[in-house]
Amino acid sequence: MRTHYCTEVTEKNIDEIVTVAGWVNSRRDHGGIIFIDLRDRGGLVQLVCDPADNKDAWEVADSVRDEFVLIATGKVRARGEGLENPNLITGKIEIVVEKLVIENKSKPMPFELGDEKVNEEIRLRNRFLELRTKRSLDIFKLRSTANIAVRNCLNDLGFLDVETPILTKSTPEGARDYLVPSRVHPGEFYALPQSPQLFKQLLMVSGFDKYFQIAKCFRDEDLRADRQPEFTQIDVEMSFCNQEDVIKVAEKLIHDTFTACGKNVPTTFPRITYKDAMEKYGSDKPDMRFDMAMVDVIDIFANSTNEIFASIAQDKKNNRIKALRCPNGDNLFSKRQMKGFEDYVRKFGAKGLGYFQMKEDGLKGPLTKFFSEEDLEAIVKTTELEVGDVVFFGAGDKKTVCDYMGRFRLYLAEQMDIIPADTYEFIWVVDFPMFETEDGKTKALHHPFTMPNLEKCDLNNVEDLEDIESIAYDIVLNGTELGGGSIRIHKEEIQEKVFELMGISQEEANEKFGFLLEALRYGAPSHGGFALGFDRMIMLLAGTDSIRDVIAFPKTQRAQCLLTQAPSEVDNDQLKELALRVRKTEI
Amino acid sequence: MRTHYCTEVTEKNIDEIVTVAGWVNSRRDHGGIIFIDLRDRGGLVQLVCDPADNKDAWEVADSVRDEFVLIATGKVRARGEGLENPNLITGKIEIVVEKLVIENKSKPMPFELGDEKVNEEIRLRNRFLELRTKRSLDIFKLRSTANIAVRNCLNDLGFLDVETPILTKSTPEGARDYLVPSRVHPGEFYALPQSPQLFKQLLMVSGFDKYFQIAKCFRDEDLRADRQPEFTQIDVEMSFCNQEDVIKVAEKLIHDTFTACGKNVPTTFPRITYKDAMEKYGSDKPDMRFDMAMVDVIDIFANSTNEIFASIAQDKKNNRIKALRCPNGDNLFSKRQMKGFEDYVRKFGAKGLGYFQMKEDGLKGPLTKFFSEEDLEAIVKTTELEVGDVVFFGAGDKKTVCDYMGRFRLYLAEQMDIIPADTYEFIWVVDFPMFETEDGKTKALHHPFTMPNLEKCDLNNVEDLEDIESIAYDIVLNGTELGGGSIRIHKEEIQEKVFELMGISQEEANEKFGFLLEALRYGAPSHGGFALGFDRMIMLLAGTDSIRDVIAFPKTQRAQCLLTQAPSEVDNDQLKELALRVRKTEI
Repeated sequence: MRTHYCTEVTEKNIDEIVTVAGWVNSRRDHGGIIFIDLRDRGGLVQLVCDPADNKDAWEVADSVRDEFVLIATGKVRARGEGLENPNLITGKIEIVVEKLVIENKSKPMPFELGDEKVNEEIRLRNRFLELRTKRSLDIFKLRSTANIAVRNCLNDLGFLDVETPILTKSTPEGARDYLVPSRVHPGEFYALPQSPQLFKQLLMVSGFDKYFQIAKCFRDEDLRADRQPEFTQIDVEMSFCNQEDVIKVAEKLIHDTFTACGKNVPTTFPRITYKDAMEKYGSDKPDMRFDMAMVDVIDIFANSTNEIFASIAQDKKNNRIKALRCPNGDNLFSKRQMKGFEDYVRKFGAKGLGYFQMKEDGLKGPLTKFFSEEDLEAIVKTTELEVGDVVFFGAGDKKTVCDYMGRFRLYLAEQMDIIPADTYEFIWVVDFPMFETEDGKTKALHHPFTMPNLEKCDLNNVEDLEDIESIAYDIVLNGTELGGGSIRIHKEEIQEKVFELMGISQEEANEKFGFLLEALRYGAPSHGGFALGFDRMIMLLAGTDSIRDVIAFPKTQRAQCLLTQAPSEVDNDQLKELALRVRKTEI
Repeated sequence: MRTHYCTEVTEKNIDEIVTVAGWVNSRRDHGGIIFIDLRDRGGLVQLVCDPADNKDAWEVADSVRDEFVLIATGKVRARGEGLENPNLITGKIEIVVEKLVIENKSKPMPFELGDEKVNEEIRLRNRFLELRTKRSLDIFKLRSTANIAVRNCLNDLGFLDVETPILTKSTPEGARDYLVPSRVHPGEFYALPQSPQLFKQLLMVSGFDKYFQIAKCFRDEDLRADRQPEFTQIDVEMSFCNQEDVIKVAEKLIHDTFTACGKNVPTTFPRITYKDAMEKYGSDKPDMRFDMAMVDVIDIFANSTNEIFASIAQDKKNNRIKALRCPNGDNLFSKRQMKGFEDYVRKFGAKGLGYFQMKEDGLKGPLTKFFSEEDLEAIVKTTELEVGDVVFFGAGDKKTVCDYMGRFRLYLAEQMDIIPADTYEFIWVVDFPMFETEDGKTKALHHPFTMPNLEKCDLNNVEDLEDIESIAYDIVLNGTELGGGSIRIHKEEIQEKVFELMGISQEEANEKFGFLLEALRYGAPSHGGFALGFDRMIMLLAGTDSIRDVIAFPKTQRAQCLLTQAPSEVDNDQLKELALRVRKTEI
């Protein structure tokens, strides 16, 4: 039908007859001559319909409106002098139309394409129109490019693409499952997978050796801005490997994929232990696009005559006094803003936010009176202060202080506007603790199949569960957790011990993942892997902050598809076939 | 951990120290020396543990059993003369073990790996063990190879890989949907997609131009041997195209994929119209690995003195008398077998099965008496009989005769053992009718978005709905429908007309696919595409006849996963959250 995509028509085609097809992006009438910017997937080309050249084509052109679909045949010519458009690939030429066919008409657009201020509901209800914008098209081209790059990288490394079931049994990811009633087995349900975790481990027991999948996963969670009921993850598992082997694969994968998407990233990424990340950045996903690490000054504050500081400094195991240097802060921020910073950290449990200003003649500020000259000097030295800087302090229990000072670090960097755009700073966070205790209940920080670091602890002789390190690692990009993984437990006796430590009974374990435990009894190799959030990766590559932008047909935060009106009610007959009844009282 | 995969160790490594890892495939003790065949994904390598060489390694070797996981380090040496094994890639060498570590133990296998006579239930319950067999591993390597080949082919052709939703609304494929209750919207349900049909058409309206996806699809059907509740299809759609464009893409895709899997197939495939396929092969998926086309002899039989034949021959529009030549049949089959053939066709509605034998002196058989010499000669000529052949006849109404004679053709070919193995014969079936009438109800043969062939008919002036041809095409491989597609309706007025002809009200149409109809109003380009059954393609490539062989974790014909025990009962709390109650009476 067409001979060229719009943007394939260039100066090389001058004097050729070409046929292009696409949408009317805009139409202008200049002194009786009609100019149409025709748009296809690649971009725009200008059509010219001059009644003096071709009356028929001009008459068709006169009747078209925005977003009509046209097929145009004509001769390519150079644009007149001064009429070139350097912003267009095709800006040096135009097509003098000899034949113009309206392939289809269009109603007027319900909103202006590309106007992001339009209510999101309207855009989602007409998602097929929003997808016409260059911004959307570019995102889905990027997503497709990343997808094939991931696959070719892993395929070249010998990984087998294996599909695991969507209709399956609950996986132990901890979130709520989506259920699917069975018609053949009334009263029974499948669950949609939260990840292929158990299946990929089974494939290792099967000797597949290297597995990958770009897998759909499902979580029926209360939705936050960056969550969707269904999402996509790059899922990888390999056998006879250690953490180093897995990290090497992940780094190559990320490097190759980002490179394919035109981004420059290194071939290996720095690492930080979980402990260091929490102490220095107050987060297990530190944003490394800027430095501003926190420094511990509890030893100096121990000498303070301020009773609160002194008392906090007495318990160095459980408390922290963190200093955060803000370069040039004394010049950047007003007193009012400083007060605002205190309000900010209070939201996250801070009792206050102390600070010193670094003046020409040393540290100033209300707190200086509690410190000796030597200690003030020690603070300057430890936090590497320069004239004009401000240094902030958070003091209190370790968890709270690290958390709010970590958040404050990010907040401050935003206020200072020092976070570089279009930069990709990766960091591995390693040596995660095996367990975390929340509301008195011990649970696995990753999942219960994560291998504890047996070189550093004896599972039969554990003092504090939280001291057990696991062989687990997260990859963090620009302060966002892109993914992570672990070496898994491949021996039944270790797995049983871990369940025991978590207070999971043999019975509960068998019921939840009996088939994995059974598989471990039949010659499981050592194995490990990782998963990367594909949607999130595309978000970061595309520089957008909404996951809905990178999903072709996304759901709202109320888990609805406004375009198709899913979910919706179904016939009673359908429910009857499934042996189900809706509890009306609860609707 | 390892330096080589088992099968990477060859004569080139003689005298090198290597480390391999894998499973004990077998273990033999020859005069105190232990030989272990170690297996990994690639295959086997022989380990030798001689107590005279290394007592420690020998002692470990002495304790291992089948399917234990080992890591072995040792020096490669040539096998002794006469001890080479030409069946193994590594058959010329062995590894003299210096260090042997048991990575994991194994219980005895619950069944002999690779024994296909073992009850399928036991194999499926232990699917992770069955997947260890060479046969399974080879299938999943093939599947992974085909998968990446498909993607690279389509990516190179400019198709964008776009993921469409799994949690969506009913699609109009006609089978039963799997439903997913919504927790956020009690009493409402998502449906799992039977195909991405509507979404891929929407993407064309969005101007994506070329889309593909290897998509999971779901149908809650009563399961036949070759069906699964979830299956995978290669899904393709393109804009501004005609049937020729689409067929070209499909042919290149199939050619590239089969080539990547080591199969020789042509770059274009022959075509047959639906009408011809039905008349000649009695099927819209003719097996072209052998010829044996049916020939119509109704004109000759019209002269017969047999009343039944003569009366059937009076209605040439609705009746058929089909001749099927069986080369050398007179020598191949006994009278008893011929009787068996009649019993076979009777199962499919035949009243009988006439035949002639071609002897040296002309046609013989009980029916000859009803025909003149000239007519007998005409039969010989029309059906191209040679001495020793048998020719069978089916007579009656068109649909019944074509159906049972088509089945008989396949049955006969199997009895004659003339279907060549490892041959791939493709054929396009084109010019499908738009509608079919079943039980008095008109329905779309493909789906209601298929474009009627407007060059051949006027929708406003239709005499017989079944005469309307659609621009739809199926690709058939070895008598199996591999997939198909169509050019879609892109204009609202045609779509409305088609619904009208099908007796679908505006209201019903709007409720079912209102969003697609709405999209057609906003500048839809002409478009079309196809879908190929990926599981089925792998079945044919792997030469297996069970779809369960090519799915890593398949379900039974009762839609159960015997490994994970899905589906299963769920907590009442979960149901309560979903505002559902199980109707106990119906279980």
